[in-house]
Amino acid sequence: MNAPTATAHLLPEIALREVPAAFVDELKARFGDRCSTALVVREQHGRDESSFTAPPPSAVVFAESTADVADAVTLCAQHRVPVIPFGVGSSLEGHLLAVQGGISIDLSRMSRIVSLNAEDLTVTVQAGVTRKQLNEEIKSSGLFFPIDPGADATLGGMSATRASGTNAVRYGTMRENVLALEVVAADGRIIRTGTRAKKSSAGYDLTRLMVGSEGTLGVITEVTLRLYPLPEAISAATCSFPSIADAVQCVIQTIQLGVPIARCELIDDNTVRMVNAHSKLGLREEHMLLMEFHGSPASVQEQAATVQEIATDCGGQAFEWATTPEARTRLWTARHNAYFAAIQSRPGCRAISTDTCVPISRLADCLLDSVAEANASGLPYFLVGHVGDGNFHFGYLLDPNIAAERETAEELNHKLVNRALALGGTCTGEHGVGLHKMGFLVDEAGVGAVDMMRTIKHALDPHNIMNPGKIFAW
Amino acid sequence: MNAPTATAHLLPEIALREVPAAFVDELKARFGDRCSTALVVREQHGRDESSFTAPPPSAVVFAESTADVADAVTLCAQHRVPVIPFGVGSSLEGHLLAVQGGISIDLSRMSRIVSLNAEDLTVTVQAGVTRKQLNEEIKSSGLFFPIDPGADATLGGMSATRASGTNAVRYGTMRENVLALEVVAADGRIIRTGTRAKKSSAGYDLTRLMVGSEGTLGVITEVTLRLYPLPEAISAATCSFPSIADAVQCVIQTIQLGVPIARCELIDDNTVRMVNAHSKLGLREEHMLLMEFHGSPASVQEQAATVQEIATDCGGQAFEWATTPEARTRLWTARHNAYFAAIQSRPGCRAISTDTCVPISRLADCLLDSVAEANASGLPYFLVGHVGDGNFHFGYLLDPNIAAERETAEELNHKLVNRALALGGTCTGEHGVGLHKMGFLVDEAGVGAVDMMRTIKHALDPHNIMNPGKIFAW
Repeated sequence: MNAPTATAHLLPEIALREVPAAFVDELKARFGDRCSTALVVREQHGRDESSFTAPPPSAVVFAESTADVADAVTLCAQHRVPVIPFGVGSSLEGHLLAVQGGISIDLSRMSRIVSLNAEDLTVTVQAGVTRKQLNEEIKSSGLFFPIDPGADATLGGMSATRASGTNAVRYGTMRENVLALEVVAADGRIIRTGTRAKKSSAGYDLTRLMVGSEGTLGVITEVTLRLYPLPEAISAATCSFPSIADAVQCVIQTIQLGVPIARCELIDDNTVRMVNAHSKLGLREEHMLLMEFHGSPASVQEQAATVQEIATDCGGQAFEWATTPEARTRLWTARHNAYFAAIQSRPGCRAISTDTCVPISRLADCLLDSVAEANASGLPYFLVGHVGDGNFHFGYLLDPNIAAERETAEELNHKLVNRALALGGTCTGEHGVGLHKMGFLVDEAGVGAVDMMRTIKHALDPHNIMNPGKIFAW
Repeated sequence: MNAPTATAHLLPEIALREVPAAFVDELKARFGDRCSTALVVREQHGRDESSFTAPPPSAVVFAESTADVADAVTLCAQHRVPVIPFGVGSSLEGHLLAVQGGISIDLSRMSRIVSLNAEDLTVTVQAGVTRKQLNEEIKSSGLFFPIDPGADATLGGMSATRASGTNAVRYGTMRENVLALEVVAADGRIIRTGTRAKKSSAGYDLTRLMVGSEGTLGVITEVTLRLYPLPEAISAATCSFPSIADAVQCVIQTIQLGVPIARCELIDDNTVRMVNAHSKLGLREEHMLLMEFHGSPASVQEQAATVQEIATDCGGQAFEWATTPEARTRLWTARHNAYFAAIQSRPGCRAISTDTCVPISRLADCLLDSVAEANASGLPYFLVGHVGDGNFHFGYLLDPNIAAERETAEELNHKLVNRALALGGTCTGEHGVGLHKMGFLVDEAGVGAVDMMRTIKHALDPHNIMNPGKIFAW
């Protein structure tokens, strides 16, 4: 790790590149009314769930096939126009903002399951399929796709940001669950990055290079995913703890014992209050772990008994089961709505979300000091965490009209990231670098590694048209 | 998949590059007696377990630190001299051959466990640590590293080839189990590709780019790995089947049911005979599955009962348990020695090993047609498979003095690879491309994807000094 840069939390300047009128004409000639320059459409595609703003893209192309994407990218390459892939707009890090101008390619109409291979536990989908749609469409096969970042994101977008979420502690992230991709490269060529074989040593791992590249190396058009048999038995439980430290201790021991827990989420007391108010729940307003166990009935029982014992040793109280599907759904919906519950708790606010992830043995160190700092700052916040993975999110709730609040939030985030890096962690467990963490990436990876990334980018996208201005400076 | 190339099985021509005398002098000045030009040392480093030959490297440097590697690579970069990293020499694909001349860097003296973080289930090792050494040294922590390619390979070498082996069906491959690397890049710079955090979305996945890059993008000097708690209970079993098709059917059903089987290996009757002769065992000389179950005592019992039932349904007979550690070790040692048992069965022979991997639903199709072809050819062979992953190896046992036999073996391999690719599989599940599969890689990945790999190679290694002539033509 290098010394933290002073500029880590500053956004890059907006530097719009020229979008020639002839280019827009060609785009319209090719795509007709599937190319829109209406302001409302452009504005809708020029923002995301981050707190940043930039002028909207010059046009939006609604792609319906890989050939559409390839044609659009080829035109952009000819005219040196930036391309930003768009799914449902759920990025938290400014990935979708046209900070250098250009066009947005909306992939949401590419929403077809291309092929389900239930016998092989794999499925190939177009990039615009969302995770909920996928699970709905494959339900009758007895299989499911576990990766669940909360938002009903597209699988293309989830691949591009290396997303994960509440099930990752057991099933891994998009890194582990994308088998292969179809990608439109910066010159418009269509490539496939792998096969349906479960493992391969055939050359460079282009799949994993594209997963997490945030649209900067190509546009993902198809995704081949691993699926899992729906667990025979599922049990969910909540348990309250007198302190965050006790809850974290319970998680650490659970993971270290090798219990294959499927979900293990922390919500602090303050956030439980917000969730109760928003979702009309009666959860005990204390620090809480939400857990889920998957497996055969016997194995679920065994896991649950082990964790209940650990929780009791750690001061856990009021272990409560949610065994019916309805009760479980209510619980996880409430968890996923924590973000909106928090936003609602302070009308007009925006959230700046942190995303550090540390080795689990350092989780308490990292978390507790940051809680103390956040409390001392006086800024309202929510706190949720995929703590089984060492990943957690503070959401600082700031009034966008009060500059000092943004400054405070950025300072808190900055201190938290520095702490996580010093503990052997990462500045982003699952949201990506986007605009906001470019400085932090250098702190984390070092100049040499970022130079290596940049060298790859320059080689694969020599005109810097693929989602430029994200991850690192050109 | 593209049309198969006619040249798929031909080796590239040897094209030695100049190694200036001044360079060797500088190397000796820097490394003293840790730089050897003795013919016996060079010859030992100029071959591997493949059946190929090339002139030995001009010198061998015995590195004892990352700084040693960086200095050697820096000198090579200055003089445009090829660099080939060397662990224990267990490559099966010609990775270690100096087909363009240059020097070998022997990393076997970099054999230190850098740090064990038992609480986080991670360990960082120097690249020359072998997998058996690692498991020996961490035994008292209650943890183990499961990836087991048979040979006692170095963890640097295993990373470089994206190795896997018998435990991959449950624990994944090096792709899933390398958390981070330290790498000396082609310009001599030392970079780290990740942190100890379990997951991250921080920029391009340089770790996964380096894993499987076969020394062509940099020299791996340190590896951070995931570890697992030693299972509370382990049971191994063998089961005989009247036909390969029946055995494969048993495997397919086991995987599709989601049984977390830890090992699931096929050995055909012919190979069982070789193993019995070599390892003095009394295994039933029929097609056989070797299986292992890991978990809590209750879970192991549950898994085993499920698989035993499936096996019986599939015509399996003589389900036999190896419950003591000694019996298990004897069984798996015999499995790992199948290669040597086969070699010994035909004195003076060399083996050409296939390595295809297909989606498991296509395993029977792929395997049975290839068995028929191999039998028809008259060439002796062995057949073992990590069938839980859809990966298997024929080893064609040829007399190196009979050109027609090599031709037959290459033809069989060629047909097998074409069949696997047509079924959605890969030409190499775990051995890597090396020299032998360069044509197959193009057939599998397509010209566009291989061009993308080549573009990355050109950008990161502009003078083509990192293990040149492997994976793809420059």
